[in-house]
Amino acid sequence: METMRGVLSPVITPFRADLSVDVPVLAAQCRWLLDADVGLAIFGTNSEGNSMSAAERAEVIAGLVSAGIPAARMMPGTGACALDDAVALTRSAVKAGVGGVLVLPPFYYKGVSDDGLFAFFSELIERVGDAALRLYLYHIPPVAQVPLSLALIERLLGRYGPVVAGIKDSGGQWDNTAALIERFAARGFAVFAGSETFLLQTLRAGGAGCISATANVNPAAIADLYRHRHDTDAEQRQQRLDQVRKVFAALPMIAAMKSAMAQATGLPDWTRLRPPLVGLSAEQQATLRSTMAQADFRIQFPRAAA
Amino acid sequence: METMRGVLSPVITPFRADLSVDVPVLAAQCRWLLDADVGLAIFGTNSEGNSMSAAERAEVIAGLVSAGIPAARMMPGTGACALDDAVALTRSAVKAGVGGVLVLPPFYYKGVSDDGLFAFFSELIERVGDAALRLYLYHIPPVAQVPLSLALIERLLGRYGPVVAGIKDSGGQWDNTAALIERFAARGFAVFAGSETFLLQTLRAGGAGCISATANVNPAAIADLYRHRHDTDAEQRQQRLDQVRKVFAALPMIAAMKSAMAQATGLPDWTRLRPPLVGLSAEQQATLRSTMAQADFRIQFPRAAA
Repeated sequence: METMRGVLSPVITPFRADLSVDVPVLAAQCRWLLDADVGLAIFGTNSEGNSMSAAERAEVIAGLVSAGIPAARMMPGTGACALDDAVALTRSAVKAGVGGVLVLPPFYYKGVSDDGLFAFFSELIERVGDAALRLYLYHIPPVAQVPLSLALIERLLGRYGPVVAGIKDSGGQWDNTAALIERFAARGFAVFAGSETFLLQTLRAGGAGCISATANVNPAAIADLYRHRHDTDAEQRQQRLDQVRKVFAALPMIAAMKSAMAQATGLPDWTRLRPPLVGLSAEQQATLRSTMAQADFRIQFPRAAA
Repeated sequence: METMRGVLSPVITPFRADLSVDVPVLAAQCRWLLDADVGLAIFGTNSEGNSMSAAERAEVIAGLVSAGIPAARMMPGTGACALDDAVALTRSAVKAGVGGVLVLPPFYYKGVSDDGLFAFFSELIERVGDAALRLYLYHIPPVAQVPLSLALIERLLGRYGPVVAGIKDSGGQWDNTAALIERFAARGFAVFAGSETFLLQTLRAGGAGCISATANVNPAAIADLYRHRHDTDAEQRQQRLDQVRKVFAALPMIAAMKSAMAQATGLPDWTRLRPPLVGLSAEQQATLRSTMAQADFRIQFPRAAA
């Protein structure tokens, strides 16, 4: 089981009018990302993963595999507040052959102890009981409001070794990402930045890559920076990525990416979000169109593939 | 379908060594609460409700009903981040004949709009599609971090009338509870305080009662204040309740209540919490024993009933 590296995307999820997941459209999106060498962090925050039940997520994985999407390139979000949900989904994902799973801490209770979080991850790993499990921790305090401390990671690594394969750091604090790399990367622990804004910095410090929302709309250029990280134009590439990111970060990001994808593909599925999230207003859509034009950015999705 | 009133408890949940719910022990706890005229807000925050999957919660309701616990006295927590989970569980609870359901907003995403929350509750109500549904909103910003605004409630009441039957206000801000009562109580909307500390104040202002954690350990005295709210000794009763509450509020409350119940019943089930929560340390247990003694408080659970 190799550790995952490079650029992954929390794949946005297309919904039909009844809010069910449109698996064929999702599969086409996955294929496009894979063509750009971007891995599939399905069911992430930007995928509205927690707005899908554990059973539904397991079905979507099965559907994607049936559609020919390689499970080894998937790193599905399999966290849940209820241990049973997390165990059932993680177990089925590992059986399907995923490259890894990205696991949130249980996020209902706040201010919980490291002992409690250790117990959760520990029960999860032991109940799944599969040597093929590669668990990537998901640190996203701005949303989950439950941070994962260095001390907790140390303890998990000490107990479970390579099963605890890495982390996505979506805290937005470079100091924390740097500390994770410094302390754990030499042991093969893969540290992913939560945004391509930190991609070059992360790679230079010894991190594994990034798992970034905007890789949904700008996959090729982000993956290109990963490939060209040692080239003399790497800084310029990073700057260009940052410009594009700003276009989407200035708006509710999931809705903005879906709106842009709807325009690029002509598919109404992409305009829909599951509650409690909502699509862009007409005004926000106009802003998006104009800032995309100003940044000279277009989504390179081949319309025929939709 | 009558609106629920009076005192309810988010019933604490006993777990076996494998962390499964011990339904017979839970049923005994429910019977004891009902004997004190305390209603059953099972699967609340203090029940570790979100640490149980939707399917598991539905099974527990069925188990309690089989054990003879009247469904009409239950107000189970049926909220979930995923609409599908919330719909499935709410539908099965209503079919089981519950008096109402207590529904959290989806709590993963923060800073969501009233439009998005309205869409969530709206989809939930319409997909459940059962005239017997009585939905009580669960406002608990300190934990869920997703508040429910007066404007949202106004909109839900305007659209769904008596189906939106009330609210539990666990925000801890009296001004908000007062505003809810002033604005909505005359329309039959039941406002429950989230703690017995506000019980008398809530009842005097025109609220429906309280749904309080410490009703798990002090049910009879809290229900007594409800019954004697017009009596001259009501203030004294309130002060006595506040003293007892302080004993448990000074410690991690769920763990403290379970520890006290383990002592009162001799059942090890009560010492267990589901991760990410943990039981009291030995030091905390000693503190609890001494502060309970100082406050001259003992749990009145009949040991034979365990």
